[in-house]
Amino acid sequence: MSADGFRFELGGRDGAARMGRLHTAHGTVETPAFMPVGTAATVKAMTPEAVAATGAEIVLANTYHLMLRPGAERVERLGGLHRFMNWERPILTDSGGYQVLSLTALRAIDERGVVFQSHLDGSRHELTPERSIAIQRALGADISMAFDECTPYPVDEAAAAASMRLSMRWAERCRAAFVERPGHALFGIVQGGVYPALRAESAAALAGIGFHGYGIGGLAVGEGQARMFDVLDRTVGLLPDDAPRYLMGVGKPADIVGAVARGIDMFDCVLPTRSGRTGQAFTRRGPVNIRNARHIEDPRPLDPDCRCPACAGYGRAYLHHLWRAEEILGRMLLTWHNLYYYQELMAGLRAAIEAGALDAWAAEFAAGQAAGDIAAL
Amino acid sequence: MSADGFRFELGGRDGAARMGRLHTAHGTVETPAFMPVGTAATVKAMTPEAVAATGAEIVLANTYHLMLRPGAERVERLGGLHRFMNWERPILTDSGGYQVLSLTALRAIDERGVVFQSHLDGSRHELTPERSIAIQRALGADISMAFDECTPYPVDEAAAAASMRLSMRWAERCRAAFVERPGHALFGIVQGGVYPALRAESAAALAGIGFHGYGIGGLAVGEGQARMFDVLDRTVGLLPDDAPRYLMGVGKPADIVGAVARGIDMFDCVLPTRSGRTGQAFTRRGPVNIRNARHIEDPRPLDPDCRCPACAGYGRAYLHHLWRAEEILGRMLLTWHNLYYYQELMAGLRAAIEAGALDAWAAEFAAGQAAGDIAAL
Repeated sequence: MSADGFRFELGGRDGAARMGRLHTAHGTVETPAFMPVGTAATVKAMTPEAVAATGAEIVLANTYHLMLRPGAERVERLGGLHRFMNWERPILTDSGGYQVLSLTALRAIDERGVVFQSHLDGSRHELTPERSIAIQRALGADISMAFDECTPYPVDEAAAAASMRLSMRWAERCRAAFVERPGHALFGIVQGGVYPALRAESAAALAGIGFHGYGIGGLAVGEGQARMFDVLDRTVGLLPDDAPRYLMGVGKPADIVGAVARGIDMFDCVLPTRSGRTGQAFTRRGPVNIRNARHIEDPRPLDPDCRCPACAGYGRAYLHHLWRAEEILGRMLLTWHNLYYYQELMAGLRAAIEAGALDAWAAEFAAGQAAGDIAAL
Repeated sequence: MSADGFRFELGGRDGAARMGRLHTAHGTVETPAFMPVGTAATVKAMTPEAVAATGAEIVLANTYHLMLRPGAERVERLGGLHRFMNWERPILTDSGGYQVLSLTALRAIDERGVVFQSHLDGSRHELTPERSIAIQRALGADISMAFDECTPYPVDEAAAAASMRLSMRWAERCRAAFVERPGHALFGIVQGGVYPALRAESAAALAGIGFHGYGIGGLAVGEGQARMFDVLDRTVGLLPDDAPRYLMGVGKPADIVGAVARGIDMFDCVLPTRSGRTGQAFTRRGPVNIRNARHIEDPRPLDPDCRCPACAGYGRAYLHHLWRAEEILGRMLLTWHNLYYYQELMAGLRAAIEAGALDAWAAEFAAGQAAGDIAAL
């Protein structure tokens, strides 16, 4: 691939885990990477400057939400998503598949694609592999995702197989519809539920088509961490070693640590942002619910070891007060803290891989999580 | 007054208008100054860093809200309001008088003070001149305000007189209760409704007691700009020339320009912050309602001449999108823009006074406001 093309540069390894660097049209991303979710072209309650200050180098935006409002072609006429949302770093867009199947009540799936009604106004829309790729191009995504059916859980093997094979046929159509441009990538998505043979079939099908990277979909949908790790153990090694691997929609900090140890390079999840808006903070000693009355006169920061603006500038008493008073600043500061925590987690993982000390790092991480919040001491 | 004391340093003049500098325990404030309102110890939807970046040098916080939640003594135990809310610059607190009389349904006023029920939980509280001053000291306010009754409008002259005289007796008790500390100030508040003789009586009473500065209360309560300016024309000149004058709760940009021309040094108002949260932006060409559909594909900033982050980074189409999607960032960016606009307004007024060109500046300001928004061109 040319120097100005999309490129995944692999760095140090520690067991199955690896460090790397994604090169995209809008800059580079150190991996393993966590992508904050910017559903409607904004990471909720954050300015782009604040997102960048947490250490995030790439954000995710949602094709489904943006195609409905403000409309992909409108964003294109306005100069693309990067300019629209004032984020000049890399953007990954999902395909819309997950949302049309989970957010819309009325929908019909067939070989061609999905017809659905908008959750906003009931208007009728169609998403096909070709349309999803066209939308993601109109938005200007650095990384586009193949349009697939996120197989529900639980599901029997026959249904999982049928769903996965439909997604593989769609993946081939996505690959054909994707227009190569320097620095832009298309990722396929492995499906197959919790069935090892189906995951292997899916991984082989995608590798045969050939993508710039590979998502692993259909996990963190209720199967539990042990089963998710089991699927990763059986799936990751079947993917091309030289391409980035993205575990979609994951997850809790411990999920991420375990998945990185199994060779995953990229993550996205609404957990840090959504939790930040509902009063839950992630810390080195596990989660803290700032709404709890025990914080009412506690001058200590959320996490004494954290250097984020919320911990550097404010005590728990103040954050608790903002919650009780329903002040927007409470949601802003907790979101900031959580995104900072996630980025610190990824930086810690990268440093541990580089030092060949991931096992020890993961053990220390787990001990910290188990230690319990300082407010309970 | 000693060098480390509260001090008002007068600078250039232009007609009745003047420039100056307030010296407080937490730093200096250039006047004429606009104070963003931080009701519950936060300027809504803004970090303190963002507030400072707009150019604001002082914020206002509300005694009534903070005494109920989280409680003034709690704030004191936590190190005072500056540390609590992470704002190390000057803070002015109001007395709580305005809120107990406007926000609480059940209340009883007598010579001693006001007994009222919290709008939050119905709990019974008392505010007296002495208690208001004690609360403001516990909060650590750089500038405390005398506890007064904000005379309603309309009201007949006899009732206005009785109300004003009660406030003057309370002002004397506030002055006696106020403990002098370096860099801390107590302002009296002129009342008297729209009756010139009562305003004169009030101003003389306060000057006789002697305060560090003088508020003008009971205006912008429905009397209209012309009548407000008329009261200012008859009142400002009766106040000590060497003390700061603060027009409370005012106002729209044109109100501020007219009041500065009449010798006012300080302002506070919820308008820029509240409007920012409801989709109205202030610009050099008058107000813009970002919810209006005409902005849906307009790539231009709110105000092409504005250098605030909202105008530098985003088009109207994006701000409109944030509004339709009910995204917090929309409220954050419009609040930021409006506070920046107000601070630019004050900086423009100060520069015009310094140049002896306030009349010309005010004429240009009025022409701009009358010109109408660029979206209508």
